[in-house]
This record gives sequence, structure tokens and C-alpha cells, in this order.
Amino acid sequence: MSVSIPANADTNLAQDTTDSQIIQGRFISFEGTEGVGKTTAIEQLCTRLDSRGIDYLRTREPGGSPFAEHLRQILLDPATDINDDTELLLMFAARCDHMQQVILPALQAGRWVICDRFTDSTVAYQGFGRAHGDEAVRTKIDMLIAQFVPQLPELTLWLDLPVAEGMRRAGKRSAADRFEQQADAFFTRVYEGFDTLARQYPERIQRIEASGSAEEVGARIWQAVQERLELI
Amino acid sequence: MSVSIPANADTNLAQDTTDSQIIQGRFISFEGTEGVGKTTAIEQLCTRLDSRGIDYLRTREPGGSPFAEHLRQILLDPATDINDDTELLLMFAARCDHMQQVILPALQAGRWVICDRFTDSTVAYQGFGRAHGDEAVRTKIDMLIAQFVPQLPELTLWLDLPVAEGMRRAGKRSAADRFEQQADAFFTRVYEGFDTLARQYPERIQRIEASGSAEEVGARIWQAVQERLELI
Repeated sequence: MSVSIPANADTNLAQDTTDSQIIQGRFISFEGTEGVGKTTAIEQLCTRLDSRGIDYLRTREPGGSPFAEHLRQILLDPATDINDDTELLLMFAARCDHMQQVILPALQAGRWVICDRFTDSTVAYQGFGRAHGDEAVRTKIDMLIAQFVPQLPELTLWLDLPVAEGMRRAGKRSAADRFEQQADAFFTRVYEGFDTLARQYPERIQRIEASGSAEEVGARIWQAVQERLELI
Repeated sequence: MSVSIPANADTNLAQDTTDSQIIQGRFISFEGTEGVGKTTAIEQLCTRLDSRGIDYLRTREPGGSPFAEHLRQILLDPATDINDDTELLLMFAARCDHMQQVILPALQAGRWVICDRFTDSTVAYQGFGRAHGDEAVRTKIDMLIAQFVPQLPELTLWLDLPVAEGMRRAGKRSAADRFEQQADAFFTRVYEGFDTLARQYPERIQRIEASGSAEEVGARIWQAVQERLELI
């Protein structure tokens, strides 16, 4: 048996989609380093969808389904002491459950899915942040995506903010979880991961300037969504 | 990036072994369908190792390390309702932890490792039993083994007993877990999985006739271990 992983793992990943049903909803993910304002940006998008009567599901990773949320607790617990490969596999186990139980059914029902973090966070945090961009780790992640993620987002909004600025904003929040306790150098590598991905998959990933007020960022996002999904 | 998985996934899997340390211990796994007598056979082998002063670690899968045993509880709980891909990834997350925390350190310390079930059970139960030998599932499992299992057993003892006979023996035990509650046809496919693997990897897998008394099976196993590991 010889299996070849395509150079662009974004293409043609729908082989496992349940019963080859046509995906009718729109799948949007939000990405970015700590403190870039994802939560606020997602709320603003959801308000705009509400006002237009668009039925959507708001979800997040890791988590998003009852079983995946259970795994999320394990993954984010500072007391959890597991090696990087184990963490990677747990992350994809959670993603698999979330995908099959929540995301695909919603898309097949014609709903929009707005997801806080998805596969790009795995590449950025585990691949670039934790593993310093190690080629073997990137290969593992790309294989897991190709084999276990039947549907990537149609549009990924990367909230781009300098790491230092994000850290200042995030510093205002309390109770740092396991990922948020990492050092500055780590987050710089994570940023580089998102930047690399945005250049690698420009058809899917839209960079959003995340400085300025929440209203300004929200307006930029709505503009991008309308243009990318050809709503205007 | 193009990644090729070798036809024989058993070869050359040691790329991740910690610091390229030389594996000094002997790694033996026991495999088989329900009721073939693995537990008794392992006890007999351990008694023989004890009497020869051989230092060994007895362990099992899924489980074998504290974190993997936690995942084992989830995997074997009849109330757990997860899809096949999620189960597969959890199984390998548990295996990863078990490997890095328990198996590799023991082998590197020169100890023998006697493991009740390992990768072949995943191929047989998830690949042949659950997925009816589906090629795509087998590919997923082979990829997970190639990417996340740095060390396969040196010798795998497959206890070969007709499924019906094993079911009769297993029926005497109580509290069937999630895997044991499956139907006869399932176990027939699992048996075919082990049989296929034994033919595919004859250098690693030794078929052991598991009918007869525990003493007879134990003697066959000890003979095989001595011959295969060149102890006599």
C-alpha cells in the first residue's frame, strides 16, 4: 500500500462526508493568537447574521460537542501531563466527535457554522508553537487533517494583531489555562504559524487587521464575509 | 509535501524513539479474540521469566499508564457513544502515552515488556471487526501506527482458537464490556484480522495453537519465545 498526501491538504478532503450529502451551510472559522478579540468579533458577526435572519450554529474548539468538551477539560487543565503526540491525538479525537456530532449535521441542515478555532490552531499551536515548526510534526498534523477531517471551513478569518498587543489585552483576563501560560517566544512562533498558513492557503484564509475598536474590526470582518462568500 | 507509507508498515518505525537510544529489552505482545486464554498464558510466561531471574514489566492495552487507563475506562464503558474515528484516535492517544511513559523507558532499562494486546488488536477489532476490513480504515490505522508508534513488539504471540470455543470460555465470565457485547459475526471478522496479520508479518507474529490445557498452551508459548528470541 502506498498513500500519497497531496501538497495542498486543503483540496478534496470530503471523502468521508456522511453519505456524500451536499454541504449546504457555510462553514466559517476564526483564528488568532491570544487576546486578538475573537470572542467579540464572533459576537459581532452573529449579531449581523441574526439581523438578517440567517440560521447559524456558534461553536468552538477544542470542544463543541459534549464528548469533545470533556476532552477539552483534560487538554486545558494545567495539571494534565501528557506528551505532544498524545495531545495531538486527543485534539483530533475531540475534533472528530465535534465534526460528526455537530458541524456536519448543521451544515447538512443548511445552517451556517461559526467556529472559534479549528485545524489552523492545531498547526499554529502544536506545529509551530510547541514543535518549533518541526517538519515531522507538521507531517503528522497534515496526515491527521487529511484522514480525519472531512470538511474544512469555507472561510477562515485570521485576526492579525501583534503578539505583544494581544498579550496586553489577554493579560487583563484571569485564570490563564495551560496554553495561555506559555512564554512570549511560543506565541511569536504561533503567530508565524498563522502567517504561514494564510500565505499557504489564500483561497481559504482571510487576514483581518485586528487593531482598532471592536466596531472597526467587526465591520472589516463583515465586509470580508460578504465578499468572500459572494453575498454582495 | 508528499509522504509515502511503506507497504510493510512493520519495518523501520523507530524514527521517534527517544534520542535514538538502543532498545535493549525484549518487547512481546499477546493477541487473540475473546476467551482464548491470554491472561492465563501471560501468567505462565511471567512465572517462567521469574524463575529465570528475568526482569520484566507486565502491561496491557488499552491502558498501561495512568492516563491511558483513564482513556481505557472511557473506551470500554458501554455508555460511551462515539464514532469509529474518534475511538481510533483515542485508542492511539492512549497507546502514545503508554509507549512514552511505560514501554520505552522499560525497554531502554533492559527490561522485558509483556503486553496484553497492542497494535494488532486495533487492526483486528477496529479495522476488520468494526469496519469490515474497509481499505480506507486500514489505511488510517496503518498511518497512525507509522506516525505514532515508534516501536513495535519484537515478537507477537497470537493465541489461535476457534471463535465459538473462545465465546464459550468467555461466556463464563461476567460483566461484558463494550467490545465483548458485540455479535458472533463481529468476532469472526476479528479472527480473520489476526489471521491476515499473522500471514502478513510472519517474522513478527507467531501463531500459537490455543486449544488444550493451560499447561499445554503455556509450554507451546515458552517454546516459541525461546526459539524466536534465540534463547536456546
